[in-house]
Amino acid sequence: MITSVNNDEVKEVAKLFTSKGRKEKNMFVVEGPHLVLEAKKCGILLKTYTTTDKYEGTLVSEVVMKKMCNTITPTTVIGVCKMFENKRSEGHILALDRVQDPGNMGSLMRSAVSFGFNTIILNEGCVDIYNDKVIRSSQGAIFRLSFIKANIVEYLSHLQDYQIFSTNVNLGNDVTKVEKGPKMVLILGNEGQGVSEEINKMNYQNLYIPIKKMESLNVSVAGGILMYELTRSK
Amino acid sequence: MITSVNNDEVKEVAKLFTSKGRKEKNMFVVEGPHLVLEAKKCGILLKTYTTTDKYEGTLVSEVVMKKMCNTITPTTVIGVCKMFENKRSEGHILALDRVQDPGNMGSLMRSAVSFGFNTIILNEGCVDIYNDKVIRSSQGAIFRLSFIKANIVEYLSHLQDYQIFSTNVNLGNDVTKVEKGPKMVLILGNEGQGVSEEINKMNYQNLYIPIKKMESLNVSVAGGILMYELTRSK
Repeated sequence: MITSVNNDEVKEVAKLFTSKGRKEKNMFVVEGPHLVLEAKKCGILLKTYTTTDKYEGTLVSEVVMKKMCNTITPTTVIGVCKMFENKRSEGHILALDRVQDPGNMGSLMRSAVSFGFNTIILNEGCVDIYNDKVIRSSQGAIFRLSFIKANIVEYLSHLQDYQIFSTNVNLGNDVTKVEKGPKMVLILGNEGQGVSEEINKMNYQNLYIPIKKMESLNVSVAGGILMYELTRSK
Repeated sequence: MITSVNNDEVKEVAKLFTSKGRKEKNMFVVEGPHLVLEAKKCGILLKTYTTTDKYEGTLVSEVVMKKMCNTITPTTVIGVCKMFENKRSEGHILALDRVQDPGNMGSLMRSAVSFGFNTIILNEGCVDIYNDKVIRSSQGAIFRLSFIKANIVEYLSHLQDYQIFSTNVNLGNDVTKVEKGPKMVLILGNEGQGVSEEINKMNYQNLYIPIKKMESLNVSVAGGILMYELTRSK
């Protein structure tokens, strides 16, 4: 049982709280029995630490667990995981351009899985998907998706047979009225600025959601509605 | 110009950061030129404080502004507003049962305005709508809504001519297939627990969104999709 917060393993795990630490080690931490189990099923769980003999793993004291957890109320079990591979899955694709809020990122993952957008392309400006808030708000969806870090325009230029939709609140086609295909890409932009000029210039088909009085919806809500509408059976 | 953080007015404004302080004074604070303007249009702006002569209002030093702002990067203008009245508006109604995350509450307000759900019923367990994070994430929608604090079941029992929909991920009707009426109420529940037993017992018509693999969506995403679908033209 580990009881010292100065233990080397404990210090290594604590380093995984920062984006830099995670990138160096190619590892991240999940907290709580539900997420540890999901990580195990997904085949990426490397090591488990727990304060109770209810779970398998290295026993640690509560003080040590507090040091290894990023939440105010520490959990009883955490898992150290290896990062996902950079590959594409079957199904539709969601491309995120500088989505920065961890809650939005997590919610978008949840919706992406729910509507069959099994791959997410993330560009440079996106929040780190291994951020603990992203993982928590994804409610396990992060384990059921493929992620690709790339320049969106560049990546999409090599894709074939996909119908590409971008979003623009001013210059778009009403989403309820567009023809939908069997393989689709949906591009969503930054919370404040929408999609970048580089993407706008590409003349992808732009979509908008018909709304009243407000200029726009929250990006995770807009993304949810668009994925719902694009995959909706008539 | 106010330059002392010990000034009585400054201390009074700082009290409005807490839910208790806001309730005692029946006032709340909005930050930034956009929200101050919206509050003014809405007729609830009582007083303005600013660090620049670009805006009307009492001049204050940057140190004082920092004391009166709840953000890390203080704005140049804040407004003290009186709370909204407890009345119902025309249009559909959104009823929120213990929605606790400020980001979700703000996003739901944005979607509610966008889809014509102009009144929001909030029960005891909901986050304080005058919380600064709620106001920021509502993007001004808070000024275009009517709010009623009430027990949901009790309030709805006095309503006539409204079609009432509740939400239940296990026992519901596919939202794409239900008959929609001209006046609707949509009930959404707590982030972790969904709607309460008290509401479930009422036998309102339950809705669900057909999704794959995940158990549920984030409540603000689900609410957005449901409001979109219920008011969608065919």
